[in-house]
Amino acid sequence: MTSSHASIHPLDEALALTAQQPGVFTGRTTQAYWNMVGPFGGITAATLLQAVLQHPDLLGDPLSLTVNFTGAVTEGDFTIRATPSRTNRSTQHWIVTLDQAGPDGQSVVATTATAVTAARRETWGSTDLPMPTAPAPQTCAPASPAFRSEWLQRYEMLPVTGNFPSVWDESIHPSQSQLWVRDVPNRPLDFVALAALSDIFYPRVWLHRAKRVPAGTVSMTTYFHANRAQLEQAGSGYLFAQARGQEFRNGFCDQTAQLWSQDGLMLATSNQIVYYKE
Amino acid sequence: MTSSHASIHPLDEALALTAQQPGVFTGRTTQAYWNMVGPFGGITAATLLQAVLQHPDLLGDPLSLTVNFTGAVTEGDFTIRATPSRTNRSTQHWIVTLDQAGPDGQSVVATTATAVTAARRETWGSTDLPMPTAPAPQTCAPASPAFRSEWLQRYEMLPVTGNFPSVWDESIHPSQSQLWVRDVPNRPLDFVALAALSDIFYPRVWLHRAKRVPAGTVSMTTYFHANRAQLEQAGSGYLFAQARGQEFRNGFCDQTAQLWSQDGLMLATSNQIVYYKE
Repeated sequence: MTSSHASIHPLDEALALTAQQPGVFTGRTTQAYWNMVGPFGGITAATLLQAVLQHPDLLGDPLSLTVNFTGAVTEGDFTIRATPSRTNRSTQHWIVTLDQAGPDGQSVVATTATAVTAARRETWGSTDLPMPTAPAPQTCAPASPAFRSEWLQRYEMLPVTGNFPSVWDESIHPSQSQLWVRDVPNRPLDFVALAALSDIFYPRVWLHRAKRVPAGTVSMTTYFHANRAQLEQAGSGYLFAQARGQEFRNGFCDQTAQLWSQDGLMLATSNQIVYYKE
Repeated sequence: MTSSHASIHPLDEALALTAQQPGVFTGRTTQAYWNMVGPFGGITAATLLQAVLQHPDLLGDPLSLTVNFTGAVTEGDFTIRATPSRTNRSTQHWIVTLDQAGPDGQSVVATTATAVTAARRETWGSTDLPMPTAPAPQTCAPASPAFRSEWLQRYEMLPVTGNFPSVWDESIHPSQSQLWVRDVPNRPLDFVALAALSDIFYPRVWLHRAKRVPAGTVSMTTYFHANRAQLEQAGSGYLFAQARGQEFRNGFCDQTAQLWSQDGLMLATSNQIVYYKE
């Protein structure tokens, strides 16, 4: 016996949206990407981008995505509104919101985003940040996660450097981590999967101070450097993912990240500002 | 003879807004920050942040600001709408738009933004990116700009590394620039000035490929690490500003930047995605 349901990748199930009218979509959180008090932030970012990509007036492919985690997304239904605020010849600007029914039945904004999509064209190109040298993923061992969360099962992560501290002794460590990562089960890379992957890193503050404190992303911005053909080329291979913090102060720290294809092509760069306690 | 007008700093004149109703402000572009085909992007970013800071319901200080340059801001009047989409206990999330009358009199969205403000508190803190060693600003010579634009007169810029290529020969250069910079005339640093300064760098693509091509910021995100007291401490001293590109492809490149106080305190980190031609 087969069912169509069983053949859907959990990522596609999480990102399934129903168009209620042009630009208004409904969806539902899934357990597969559940984090501790809400969905994995990456899946929320991907869901907002999905709404843009399914809008009938879409121009081009994702160039930039900023997601603001205004409040916890709760289990259940949500409504996404994706509005093109301006369409130019080769770029299009979007404002996106995710609402849920609050405790009193009133609609509450749980996430906001802006996005830019663009029709990209052939130009001169270059990189000023080549992929670092790293051992092949086949030679790297998966690490057992330092915390249990359902969404961690949706990714294969092979730490290269900057894995969880072996001792949580509050000593200062460089905050950079590098890992190989891909979706589980394997799934050909696309823009929504890449948006989710840009939030794959555990909190830099845990690594830098060798202490686990409550932490959560407040706002994340991802720049997409790959076009559709380059994502297809990356296929279901590993990505090389790298992140580091720059400044940690007064309850917030930032994170700068890069994601390359297994072949060393920069696919996305991403930044976020993260809340931490204590 | 003195006039009150003469005593207003050009930055404050450019950022002067009139509240029409709560969250709706009108303002007007000024020649002092004019760039080639519109205002300097930094002044537009600062103006949108100014609207948030003047909103009667404001909570806390700026933490994050993403500005999307949806189209050219034209000379003349504009209307800014700043809306708190959600207010939490210690963070507040904003959606901001800047409209102008288009050629046919219809309102056109020229800029969109999201911002997060936050009530920051004392916590553990650390930096993982100390200010690079640099010669004191007093020993650095101002460089003559490679292009003429009115807004360049509003800043004193003392290049340290990565100044304009001396020859535009299309050879590949590292894309990093470092400079000392401050407002002209001197002006005590605040959040709006810092927002403007985060866009101070000339296009990385000019440096990296030693070629001047049309280029413009599409979206910029700035994270504020300093609180009000730390900005006051920075006063009207120089900032040490550093930027580099990471990837240049298919008409767009990114830029990652840091701004420190003269004393070496990280004030802001900033990123942008930039359009370039050819």
